[in-house]
Amino acid sequence: MKKNNIPYKVYLDEDEIPKAWYNIRADMKTDHRPMLNPQTLEPITAEELSPIFCDKLIAQELNDKDRFIEIPEPIRDFYKMYRPSPLVRAYCLEKMLNTPAKIYYKYEGGNTSGSHKLNSAIAQGYYAKEQGLKGLSTETGAGQWGTAMSMACAYFGLELKVYMVKVSASQKPYRKTVMETYGANVVPSPSDTTNVGRMLLEMNPDSNGSLGTAISEAVEVAATTEGYRYVLGSVLNQVLLHQSVIGLEAKTAFEKIGDYPDIVIGCAGGGSNLGGLIGPFIKDKFAGKDAPYFIAVEPASCPSLTRGKFAYDFCDTGKVAPLAKMYTIGATYVPSGSHAGGLRYHGMAPILSQLYHDGFIDEARAVKQTDVFDAATMFAKAEGNLPAPESAHAIRVAIDEAIKCRESGEEKTILFGLSGTGYFDLGAYALYNENAMTDSVPSDEDLNESFSAIPKV
Amino acid sequence: MKKNNIPYKVYLDEDEIPKAWYNIRADMKTDHRPMLNPQTLEPITAEELSPIFCDKLIAQELNDKDRFIEIPEPIRDFYKMYRPSPLVRAYCLEKMLNTPAKIYYKYEGGNTSGSHKLNSAIAQGYYAKEQGLKGLSTETGAGQWGTAMSMACAYFGLELKVYMVKVSASQKPYRKTVMETYGANVVPSPSDTTNVGRMLLEMNPDSNGSLGTAISEAVEVAATTEGYRYVLGSVLNQVLLHQSVIGLEAKTAFEKIGDYPDIVIGCAGGGSNLGGLIGPFIKDKFAGKDAPYFIAVEPASCPSLTRGKFAYDFCDTGKVAPLAKMYTIGATYVPSGSHAGGLRYHGMAPILSQLYHDGFIDEARAVKQTDVFDAATMFAKAEGNLPAPESAHAIRVAIDEAIKCRESGEEKTILFGLSGTGYFDLGAYALYNENAMTDSVPSDEDLNESFSAIPKV
Repeated sequence: MKKNNIPYKVYLDEDEIPKAWYNIRADMKTDHRPMLNPQTLEPITAEELSPIFCDKLIAQELNDKDRFIEIPEPIRDFYKMYRPSPLVRAYCLEKMLNTPAKIYYKYEGGNTSGSHKLNSAIAQGYYAKEQGLKGLSTETGAGQWGTAMSMACAYFGLELKVYMVKVSASQKPYRKTVMETYGANVVPSPSDTTNVGRMLLEMNPDSNGSLGTAISEAVEVAATTEGYRYVLGSVLNQVLLHQSVIGLEAKTAFEKIGDYPDIVIGCAGGGSNLGGLIGPFIKDKFAGKDAPYFIAVEPASCPSLTRGKFAYDFCDTGKVAPLAKMYTIGATYVPSGSHAGGLRYHGMAPILSQLYHDGFIDEARAVKQTDVFDAATMFAKAEGNLPAPESAHAIRVAIDEAIKCRESGEEKTILFGLSGTGYFDLGAYALYNENAMTDSVPSDEDLNESFSAIPKV
Repeated sequence: MKKNNIPYKVYLDEDEIPKAWYNIRADMKTDHRPMLNPQTLEPITAEELSPIFCDKLIAQELNDKDRFIEIPEPIRDFYKMYRPSPLVRAYCLEKMLNTPAKIYYKYEGGNTSGSHKLNSAIAQGYYAKEQGLKGLSTETGAGQWGTAMSMACAYFGLELKVYMVKVSASQKPYRKTVMETYGANVVPSPSDTTNVGRMLLEMNPDSNGSLGTAISEAVEVAATTEGYRYVLGSVLNQVLLHQSVIGLEAKTAFEKIGDYPDIVIGCAGGGSNLGGLIGPFIKDKFAGKDAPYFIAVEPASCPSLTRGKFAYDFCDTGKVAPLAKMYTIGATYVPSGSHAGGLRYHGMAPILSQLYHDGFIDEARAVKQTDVFDAATMFAKAEGNLPAPESAHAIRVAIDEAIKCRESGEEKTILFGLSGTGYFDLGAYALYNENAMTDSVPSDEDLNESFSAIPKV
């Protein structure tokens, strides 16, 4: 089964874990447009951000100069507990597909948070501790980010308040338990603990909540609680910066085995996994070298890149967070209730939006969730690894590309990001197993309605 | 934080994964007593076992001659997808405990089955396939073994029928989902699909089921279904054989870093994890070399080694499986309903029972579950790894020994087995977090009652 003596799993040595993050903004041909203050609609300043975010993280957010930013030693020490993550050669999947393509995946789901989110959580926790803060507030949807932040805060001895989208909190009580085991205070959102939550509950007492609402609540708590700041697990520049460890490690692993990807595929919700994976490879494209073909994969039921507008939009429902120039289907958009597969944020990271707009990300592809779960199940059986539904979006396209190679006879090298484990998404798998999963694709009318809420800036 | 340049995680190279399992029986000073036919009470023969077990596995079960048994290449290929498992230096736990001890753990929970069980499951699946069988039957309690067998059967294209203890099936529906995702047929036990199940349901229609009952049902199905055999995830010699990869890898990793454990600690239910971890180190003791001090850790609520009898006993409730000479608290024993932490089998693997009886396992220690969850939570926060409650029994004792070292100033090297992840045991963590977990220790009267069901053989 093994070809060319490439092992099933390529592990870097501990001293090959990156010592600096890659800041893609230093190399971008066109920088993304700045975030705007939601009150003034003027570019937001570090000073205006400081009641909400940690100072060092604001500096990283606004840094468009330094190509590499050193990873502080305490963060690197924590990374050593669960990194380097393996670059896996999917020999058994290749065999199942009977493809001449070489398929690799970078597996980020092997830590207790279950996903890549821990890479940024531990960094954000560190800078909060360094600043002498007492605690942090954040939101979580499916729970990966909340779990990751809980672990980081437990490690550094910080308080953590997590606003968890109400429907998730009731559907995934065990995610709540993990966060509480790590000492976090988990509040189903919308809640009566914030002004914005009380207002929304008054309008709709039975609200299931949304990521946008949970963000608004968490931001309000950070802005109004002494010694607290807010942390976010995706979309932001700082998060893509921290997540660059994924791509940096993958690149080093490819150097070790003497290979290089022809195609790099990542799933895209807010964009932290995709940005982290592809950033260091896009660097080659900036430098005019041969570079992979980049594919961003998103759910057909939440198609920000493939059907959204490239516009300034609100990042949250309550309009308390800054506005960002990004691909968006509108902050009021809510994917159909039948959508089980994650990646439900209405916008896309400004960096990735700009890269896509400028053609550095070659393609965005929207996939239907039943096709995604077909791929997930196929992958689980072949590779002995149950993927997160989010990650399975990338698997779907990797399989499709590998099948094209079978048909064309091309021996392409395909890399995709396996950003998380499916352990916490078994409700969705159960639906799929029972043939009770359906596909939902918004109509043009649906999208036009949510587009109408995008502000004219 | 780092001492002596030992990395946080020691990974072997792919070609250092063992090519042969270690068969401890070839070296044991006193062999364990043979299994008995439940009808005749005479030592059971290969022929009598062949309607139930795969032929090659029977040969392994009865093999007391060959010190090493080659691992077939397809099994080694599968091992390469999730092994070698890391030997982790618990630097952060050491720091939290302020101990001069060096604490290591061998982590087996990083695969989708969530535990070490996959090491034997893939082997048993392979031999079934090689024999040309159509399918397998087995039982599962918490679900680790059933998940592992589901993965193995999906990989080799075998059917699988899993009898899942009814109370677990309702408490852990997602475990059922994982198995079904891998194509297994999961039946809550007792069921009306077997004679023994129907009989037990007639006696007690509201039965919650037990591992002993589920074994009886699975064995019956294997014996009466064309092309089926039965597989078991613990207790048996063959299982300890397959699990020796744990200890073999750990030993090689210690050689690489120039260290050797003074104490080896494993949790003990049926004994597969403990046996697999300690076997290759006990080999040194057999050879008269310096060897570690071995501690088996069991729950105070199911204390087979510390309070059981060393006697022939039934392995299952329905008395259809062979009898084994082992430490047992009686096949009718059921741990208190408040016991959440796994390791609930009434007996202990015959090999381990004999080793303990003969003093090769130095100590057995029973621990209370609230103390276990204290240790689990402490470990999760320090090391960023949420342990299975079973594994946390070993963590409890590792922490206790490390604290003794702090008091004595001894720089002992402690190794424990972290056999699984806690992802699927969050119900128990939730109980603990809510201070609703209690300890239960059987009274002497309780044990005397279950002892009375042990046959006079």
